[in-house]
Amino acid sequence: MKYYHPLLLTPGPTPVPEHILHATQLPMVGHRSSDFEAIAEQAFKSLKPIFGSKNEVMILTSSGTSVLEASMLNIANPDDDIVVIVSGAFGNRFKQIAETYYDNVHIFEVEWGQAVSVPDFIDFLKSLNTEITAVFSQYCETSTAVLHPVHELGKALNDFDSSIYFVVDGVSCIGAVDVDLERDYIDVLVSGSQKAIMLPPGLGFVAYNNRAKERFNAVETPRFYLDLNKYLKSLAEHSTPFTPNVSLFRGVNAYAELINAEGLDQVVARHYAIRDGLRQALKALDLELLVQDVYASPTVTAFTPKSKDELNYIKSELKNRFAITIAGGQGHLKGQILRIGHMGQISPFDILQVVSALEILLSEFRNESYVGKAITQYMEVVKAYV
Amino acid sequence: MKYYHPLLLTPGPTPVPEHILHATQLPMVGHRSSDFEAIAEQAFKSLKPIFGSKNEVMILTSSGTSVLEASMLNIANPDDDIVVIVSGAFGNRFKQIAETYYDNVHIFEVEWGQAVSVPDFIDFLKSLNTEITAVFSQYCETSTAVLHPVHELGKALNDFDSSIYFVVDGVSCIGAVDVDLERDYIDVLVSGSQKAIMLPPGLGFVAYNNRAKERFNAVETPRFYLDLNKYLKSLAEHSTPFTPNVSLFRGVNAYAELINAEGLDQVVARHYAIRDGLRQALKALDLELLVQDVYASPTVTAFTPKSKDELNYIKSELKNRFAITIAGGQGHLKGQILRIGHMGQISPFDILQVVSALEILLSEFRNESYVGKAITQYMEVVKAYV
Repeated sequence: MKYYHPLLLTPGPTPVPEHILHATQLPMVGHRSSDFEAIAEQAFKSLKPIFGSKNEVMILTSSGTSVLEASMLNIANPDDDIVVIVSGAFGNRFKQIAETYYDNVHIFEVEWGQAVSVPDFIDFLKSLNTEITAVFSQYCETSTAVLHPVHELGKALNDFDSSIYFVVDGVSCIGAVDVDLERDYIDVLVSGSQKAIMLPPGLGFVAYNNRAKERFNAVETPRFYLDLNKYLKSLAEHSTPFTPNVSLFRGVNAYAELINAEGLDQVVARHYAIRDGLRQALKALDLELLVQDVYASPTVTAFTPKSKDELNYIKSELKNRFAITIAGGQGHLKGQILRIGHMGQISPFDILQVVSALEILLSEFRNESYVGKAITQYMEVVKAYV
Repeated sequence: MKYYHPLLLTPGPTPVPEHILHATQLPMVGHRSSDFEAIAEQAFKSLKPIFGSKNEVMILTSSGTSVLEASMLNIANPDDDIVVIVSGAFGNRFKQIAETYYDNVHIFEVEWGQAVSVPDFIDFLKSLNTEITAVFSQYCETSTAVLHPVHELGKALNDFDSSIYFVVDGVSCIGAVDVDLERDYIDVLVSGSQKAIMLPPGLGFVAYNNRAKERFNAVETPRFYLDLNKYLKSLAEHSTPFTPNVSLFRGVNAYAELINAEGLDQVVARHYAIRDGLRQALKALDLELLVQDVYASPTVTAFTPKSKDELNYIKSELKNRFAITIAGGQGHLKGQILRIGHMGQISPFDILQVVSALEILLSEFRNESYVGKAITQYMEVVKAYV
């Protein structure tokens, strides 16, 4: 068997950098100790620039879905009207959570692979002709690799009715995009640890503005482990209401050290450069991109092979021959698309490995030569970043 | 500064063995991969003997409180009558969860430091004169170091009314006690990763019998992240409904390897030998034990120093001079007691370090000599195990 460095290119979990792994390995400390308080204080603070938040970011010991749920249970009362934008599998998850707890749920459907149209969405809100408490949307819809125009959406929503809370699921893009709660009119922004924040899975993050904080306290929907008021109270004391994943809290601080060393602007620029280069490479391989350039996520790229046989050939040969793991589609896109995750500590040169492997596989499968074509296109774009 | 090996003797989190740390460091894999399915299948199975369960054990990515909450939301409907035994801080937590979601909550108060009296409890149930759906109790009440007579309680409850579900919080003792769901008449038994199972915090475990499994499916209390039906459905497919903490799942399997190598019986015997030895040592130091011998937990020991000054001297000097971390009291026992945790990968000889440090500190503080007395008493007991 030939040797290649294994490359995990799913849209999360992502490879965990050595620096973070080492931090998570330090000897355990009690979570009710001054040792842990120092760790927690730093972790809550260090996530502020990543989330574009003026307030310290809450950290829950649980995975992404739990903070989607928390963002809803702490913003909406049981009889409130809420709106969920559904453009893929994770929009569906917001919808399922909503329908578990609420009677007045309004769904705005967006074709999978498309971004939300802001004017159409505002027309939809008008047509509801009822008082809306909150709108829930993905930032990046992981299942389709769309990055929704969150700033435009937030601004239009604020213009339409500034009393509506705007709640955003940033699980698969926070850490790789330029976000600012105030500038983007976001009230609550949640994410998880295992995507661009490049920790193992196991933490959920909740950023919030001041009016959201007040709202959490006013909302009466029953919740306990996911009661954000408990986390806010503890946060002020550099602590957590329930036993925290001590190892991953240390991981957060190690992550922040990496980001500070590279510079958050550079981190974001690197993700966009890789996105742009990879899209050119896939075009050079005659692979159809699912998402328009303008709405393409900097963290994951979806493409449609020419046939199911070609799709299966690519996915299995990448894994079996080249030790490269990419993801398939979800929901009705299963068997239709492939997704390459490119977030976290990915060097522009890492992506050469998957692009050149794709050149070889498609040359074989289609019986024509792509060798050199896609990597050239890739580097033509990426050289401006390098 | 003099050097001593740091010793973390709080009642959780516990030191993480090297073998487990190494497992949690392996390169990340996607959680929707056959790699992870193999890890998950093994983890669900490997916990069966630890929980005395015939069914595979569910694993949630979240901490202990979340599985206390899950055990309630999946067993009781909103209008059901439920009974909570409160004998300390974690009984209070069950009570708070219950009062968040349920109107018909009956509290059976037990003096902190005492074990539940089974006949008194059955009399209490009779006095309620209503149909009870479930009883919730701690196994070990961590805050007082009491191990409740769970087998006797389960049997009496079953004799009283076999339709009542018996739900047990085993967070601070599972992995160090001999438990068997069927023999002990337990329907649901929950625990966390950071106590005798000696992983970092971040996983919750739920063991259940077949009738509990059916009940989960019948209960209509709204829940999403904590919906155990979702975990059961995924478990059958060697998967999880939401992103799992992949690293800690690997840690579960590494933990099981350690337990299999030592033998679960030996692990339990070691915890009891340490408990018995430590209790004799504390008596030799003229320190009052909070809990009667017969109800003393094998995982944590609580004692009452002669004064607050003595308490503070012990706790701070152990930490500052000898690098030994122990815990104080919780709730109204704060400032009254100290607690030494002794669970997980603790060798009988590790405890000599804290016992001899206590000899030195109390000799200084009381101006009389204890040197050699407590460690001799300790080894007189422990030699039978060694």
